[in-house]
Amino acid sequence: MKQLCKVDEWKIIEEQIHPDQNRLAESLMSIGNGQMGMRGNFEESYSGDTHLGTYVGGVYYPDKTRVGWWKNGYPEYFAKVLNAMDFTGICVFIDEEELDLHVWKVVHFQRVLNMKHGYLQREFEAVSPEGKKISANVTRFFSIVDSSLVAIKYEVTSKNFEGNVTFQPYIDGDVRNEDANYDEDFWMPVYHHASENEAVLTMRTRKTAFDVTAAMVTEVNGNGVTNGQVTNQDEYVDHKVSAHLSENATATFYKYISVMTSRHVEKSALPDAAKERVAKASHNGFESLLKAQTEAWEERWNHADVTIQGDVSAQQGIRYNIFQLYNTYTGEDAELNIGPKGFTGEKYGGSTYWDTEAYCLPFYLSTADASVARNLLIYRHRQLGKAKENAEKLGLKGALYPMVTMNGEESHNEWEITFEEIHRNGAIAHAIWNYVNYTGDTDYLNEYGYEVLAEISKFWASRVNFNPRKGKYMMLGVTGPNEYENNVNNNWHTNRMAAWTLEYTLSVALYLENNHPKTSFELKQRLGVTEDDFDHWKDIIEKMYYPYDEQLGVFLQQDGFLDKDLIHVADLDENHLPLNQNWSWDRILRSCFIKQADVLQSLYFLNDRFSKEEKQRNFDFYEPMTVHESSLSPCVHSILASELGYEHKAYEMYLRTARLDLDNYNNDTEDGLHITSMAGSWLSIVHGFAGMRVVKGELEFSPFIPKDWDNYSFKINFRGHLLNVMVDQQATIITQEEGSLFTVNVKGEIYEVPENGKVIID
Amino acid sequence: MKQLCKVDEWKIIEEQIHPDQNRLAESLMSIGNGQMGMRGNFEESYSGDTHLGTYVGGVYYPDKTRVGWWKNGYPEYFAKVLNAMDFTGICVFIDEEELDLHVWKVVHFQRVLNMKHGYLQREFEAVSPEGKKISANVTRFFSIVDSSLVAIKYEVTSKNFEGNVTFQPYIDGDVRNEDANYDEDFWMPVYHHASENEAVLTMRTRKTAFDVTAAMVTEVNGNGVTNGQVTNQDEYVDHKVSAHLSENATATFYKYISVMTSRHVEKSALPDAAKERVAKASHNGFESLLKAQTEAWEERWNHADVTIQGDVSAQQGIRYNIFQLYNTYTGEDAELNIGPKGFTGEKYGGSTYWDTEAYCLPFYLSTADASVARNLLIYRHRQLGKAKENAEKLGLKGALYPMVTMNGEESHNEWEITFEEIHRNGAIAHAIWNYVNYTGDTDYLNEYGYEVLAEISKFWASRVNFNPRKGKYMMLGVTGPNEYENNVNNNWHTNRMAAWTLEYTLSVALYLENNHPKTSFELKQRLGVTEDDFDHWKDIIEKMYYPYDEQLGVFLQQDGFLDKDLIHVADLDENHLPLNQNWSWDRILRSCFIKQADVLQSLYFLNDRFSKEEKQRNFDFYEPMTVHESSLSPCVHSILASELGYEHKAYEMYLRTARLDLDNYNNDTEDGLHITSMAGSWLSIVHGFAGMRVVKGELEFSPFIPKDWDNYSFKINFRGHLLNVMVDQQATIITQEEGSLFTVNVKGEIYEVPENGKVIID
Repeated sequence: MKQLCKVDEWKIIEEQIHPDQNRLAESLMSIGNGQMGMRGNFEESYSGDTHLGTYVGGVYYPDKTRVGWWKNGYPEYFAKVLNAMDFTGICVFIDEEELDLHVWKVVHFQRVLNMKHGYLQREFEAVSPEGKKISANVTRFFSIVDSSLVAIKYEVTSKNFEGNVTFQPYIDGDVRNEDANYDEDFWMPVYHHASENEAVLTMRTRKTAFDVTAAMVTEVNGNGVTNGQVTNQDEYVDHKVSAHLSENATATFYKYISVMTSRHVEKSALPDAAKERVAKASHNGFESLLKAQTEAWEERWNHADVTIQGDVSAQQGIRYNIFQLYNTYTGEDAELNIGPKGFTGEKYGGSTYWDTEAYCLPFYLSTADASVARNLLIYRHRQLGKAKENAEKLGLKGALYPMVTMNGEESHNEWEITFEEIHRNGAIAHAIWNYVNYTGDTDYLNEYGYEVLAEISKFWASRVNFNPRKGKYMMLGVTGPNEYENNVNNNWHTNRMAAWTLEYTLSVALYLENNHPKTSFELKQRLGVTEDDFDHWKDIIEKMYYPYDEQLGVFLQQDGFLDKDLIHVADLDENHLPLNQNWSWDRILRSCFIKQADVLQSLYFLNDRFSKEEKQRNFDFYEPMTVHESSLSPCVHSILASELGYEHKAYEMYLRTARLDLDNYNNDTEDGLHITSMAGSWLSIVHGFAGMRVVKGELEFSPFIPKDWDNYSFKINFRGHLLNVMVDQQATIITQEEGSLFTVNVKGEIYEVPENGKVIID
Repeated sequence: MKQLCKVDEWKIIEEQIHPDQNRLAESLMSIGNGQMGMRGNFEESYSGDTHLGTYVGGVYYPDKTRVGWWKNGYPEYFAKVLNAMDFTGICVFIDEEELDLHVWKVVHFQRVLNMKHGYLQREFEAVSPEGKKISANVTRFFSIVDSSLVAIKYEVTSKNFEGNVTFQPYIDGDVRNEDANYDEDFWMPVYHHASENEAVLTMRTRKTAFDVTAAMVTEVNGNGVTNGQVTNQDEYVDHKVSAHLSENATATFYKYISVMTSRHVEKSALPDAAKERVAKASHNGFESLLKAQTEAWEERWNHADVTIQGDVSAQQGIRYNIFQLYNTYTGEDAELNIGPKGFTGEKYGGSTYWDTEAYCLPFYLSTADASVARNLLIYRHRQLGKAKENAEKLGLKGALYPMVTMNGEESHNEWEITFEEIHRNGAIAHAIWNYVNYTGDTDYLNEYGYEVLAEISKFWASRVNFNPRKGKYMMLGVTGPNEYENNVNNNWHTNRMAAWTLEYTLSVALYLENNHPKTSFELKQRLGVTEDDFDHWKDIIEKMYYPYDEQLGVFLQQDGFLDKDLIHVADLDENHLPLNQNWSWDRILRSCFIKQADVLQSLYFLNDRFSKEEKQRNFDFYEPMTVHESSLSPCVHSILASELGYEHKAYEMYLRTARLDLDNYNNDTEDGLHITSMAGSWLSIVHGFAGMRVVKGELEFSPFIPKDWDNYSFKINFRGHLLNVMVDQQATIITQEEGSLFTVNVKGEIYEVPENGKVIID
């Protein structure tokens, strides 16, 4: 494990420049505001290894699929996250020498991501090849107050010379995706304008025709400021401005950028709208914008923070994860979702996996307004039409949501995943239950939820086959969450979630019939769901086949699982790990080793359906065979271990998720951060250590605290209550910060939490 | 079905030009000589749709793998059959107008593949845009007497004008594969020389550095012959020569080409060697070369022909298949093998599939000298080292032969095939048995065979896992011959062939110990095979698990097969067929439908191990679920149907293989011919209709004849005997053409076949 950055409660601090690990550092220093974001690239030119990456949410390109062997049903095009125009760049010259930290001698360097206040800051001293020494202090942020805004302050001080500093701010639209399948240029130029101190550039995506406009305004504070050349080209605009520096004098340069897209503004109005917005921002000035940013982040932390005392490293890890989740998704825009790499890299097509429903939704449910989680659900409702087309393509009824998507269409092409990893449909149904169970917002069901549930249920009902020899419904040819098994029969988790979906859908149908008879009638008509369907669903629920071993008393991950060599990970030669780097694919497949929670995923999702003994037997059986080679795996194990009182295991699993990127655990953070799995560390603390559950509208806790920690605390929103839950080695203290008196259940006892008061449980 | 060509016993006759189906016609008119070959391209320029394809055996290029998602174990490079230099081209001009049948008005056109004598002939009359009418007669052949030679005669007659005809023969090295993964040029120029009437060009493959040299000599018979311009470039050589044509006069142009490669000749000596050879050929002259070709083909047919009377279409089909098999492989070169498209197209990497052992080997065993089949086996022995590396890559012992290969390395990258379709190893072992059983050449075992068998046995022994719960050895995660099932457990055929391999290897070990004790001892030492290995193999043989259903009395294709919806192909809506074009891959996988013989493949391979009742029950169970969407499928069903007395089914299945390409049954012959499956139609007649088997060194027949045929006959080589077997509606007549008196078993009765005599069985 390479710890690039210093441990600190609120900051990510890189104390020297890392030319060999610059991509990793750039990933870690990523910053965004839910609408856009970028990697921790330098503003000035850098001739060393770097991956310049700036991303604008919801703007995608359907890249032509690349496969070795085509299989019927593959999508012809994949929606890709786009590397968008580089709008933060500022070339810096000292007299004729261009600043380049790969060439200049770096005397001092510090790059700091300030999580508390949401900005990135760099301080450095460097000496030019001709011996001119400068110090610089650069601050930039992506505003969360106005999500179209980015602001940069770039201070340069002469340390040993008298001369000129020239700033050359630019917007560069000639940008390529590193992962383009056929090295195509995804963008074409639309509009450009440049003059002294301001410029605008609009680029358009090919095929999808999204326009993205960036407008910049710049300003210099210094002596002898003179404007220089302006460049005004199709895909590139810049201008130059110089200031005179006497020894120890400082020139301060400001660049304000407003970025807007045709997703929100008429194409023809984009340049003016962006110009207007950025003019206003520059009028307000950098310090005022930064103050607003600081306050907004403090307010956000006030609802979303998790504190850990006695372990700074753990504290930094959980805050980093929360920070990056909010950089990626804020829930204000139902067209957006939570990409696996957020705005920090471009690997993987598409932006939305089942990670969103299974891992991220509970985080947003508890730390943000209910509207945020609701928007995540509505995102899927908007894509229901495409999910129905997807099912039809496979010769099935109802809706099958894609494995990965941007606009509702499938963006994945491994048959064993794309066509077979269909448990994702169950996760999407379960998220509806989760939302309604947590918020009590039953209106969601008549407005959106039932329609999605009914179509998913139709899918399950057409996907099972009745086996007359056994009198059971079966589901053949699937891949479960454990992707180290492909094309298996009767994956227990998939069968379980399918039957659960049918049950839940039937219960929602009954609820609607009783409470909203008119809506219920209309929906039935519109969706074409009949009593025959209901009867069929009931029959499936009753006769679903669940592989089970009587002798061991465990649910079997799939048919034939016990025919494998059942070996524990602990008994493997360490050189074989991680398996996905050391074993051929067939060897992985025929082994018993489990990539990520599979049977255990159901035990987490449908937690109250299983006895503690069942959970224990299955955990004891499967955990030792699990290699956790997905970043999504350890948190589910951590949560179940907490519930079962396996405190050591719970803590071990927590550590594997909390600092995954900061410690570059999987050795691939240079490609971008593992955004969606970041929610897992929050889940490990809140659902795991604190044992939070919502049962029949009531909040329950069952806390424990790792023995090395002094205390931990977190805040949650729950049905109009803002609670602070603090657990230390002696007690649990639940403080109500907003909301009226209500009750919570802690370890089976009921406690009242007064308005503006607290309850202490020893 | 599109029948492009006229039915004829010995010829493939295209009676008009087919601009819309030219690629199909070019595939059908392919010709070769085992060392090289080409599609039926025109010599002169053609501006319509065409796929120029000339292929030289054993010369390959490792193209960089293209995949959607990388899996551990995939090969980084794929050996590809190369489209090589175009050496048959001759541009033809009438005065200033270039002959181009896509532009000129074609008055008459006939393209004839003469199978009896091994040449391709074209006759046409065409009128130029300016109204000049010519007739032409073009003959070319790839010599089977000297396999480096190609000869072309090009006659042009003026029908209505006086003027000049100019011939511009060329060799063009700037050729690309249509299926290159990254549009790379696989060739670079090495040597070029051109002068009047002769030219040489050497091209070298990139990476593998094979040199291929073509030398040409030309000659014109006509009036007023004058030499024109010579072009002598890096990758292209040509020259021009003109003759004067008065009305109704003819000019005859000859092009002789010798093609040699660094596989057989030192690189530095290549140009001179090729020049020398082609000079000799031109000295002998076209007619003399053609005469030798004609005689050689007649001699070949004398050993390999199958006649069918009463069905010209069937007669043409079987001869076409035999003809194209010999165009592809003659068995003189142990480095070569039988590519699925031979020299007729470039789809699919690699050249060698298990098709060779399972389908082609028995054909060559019976129709050619035993050395031919022996060379096919030695080919695998030569590649044993690579097969051991391949097994090691997958973490296994012994040898795993690749699914597709050129030089022993894997050239395939679908994990479910590459890593899992391992029954191919069984087919390779079985071919050794087949060869020794047929020829009695037990020396092959000590020289080569045992080594291959032992390494394959080691592989099987490391690939199974012992299941203590069931006390059985199992084989998990495999793909059987039926590729419409992937990653299944305990494919019956694979388990059966694995255990059979172990049995056969043990019996060969015992044979060596008893008969060649010294060799036996040396081999044991060298291969590291111990008594423990033998004990382990015996244990596996004894405790191998074979899925079986007591109630149905059938071997189960794999675990869980009966959990599927068991539907018959006949009950499917016809619009769904072929499934591989109409169903998504997952739907195919979870269905019961079978792409090609799977359980039945073992029943064919290990024919004498199963009772007729077992064969019948399994055939009756599986046949109705088989869609035969592989060209390799129908013949196995045909053979078993013959054995079971299902004459109608046997004939139906025969028809599906015999004219697959001539009738473009799979609608993909434009990509090239299905060479390996061509052996299947021969098998259907000889092993199927005639019921030929070799049991304990004795030849057995059990003939029947389809009711629409008058008679059929075929020749076989068997241990020094050349037999003609003729079956008509009344009797079977076995005539010995070479060899001494011996006995055959016909339908259970023993008959003596006298030297130079015959036996008639009513």
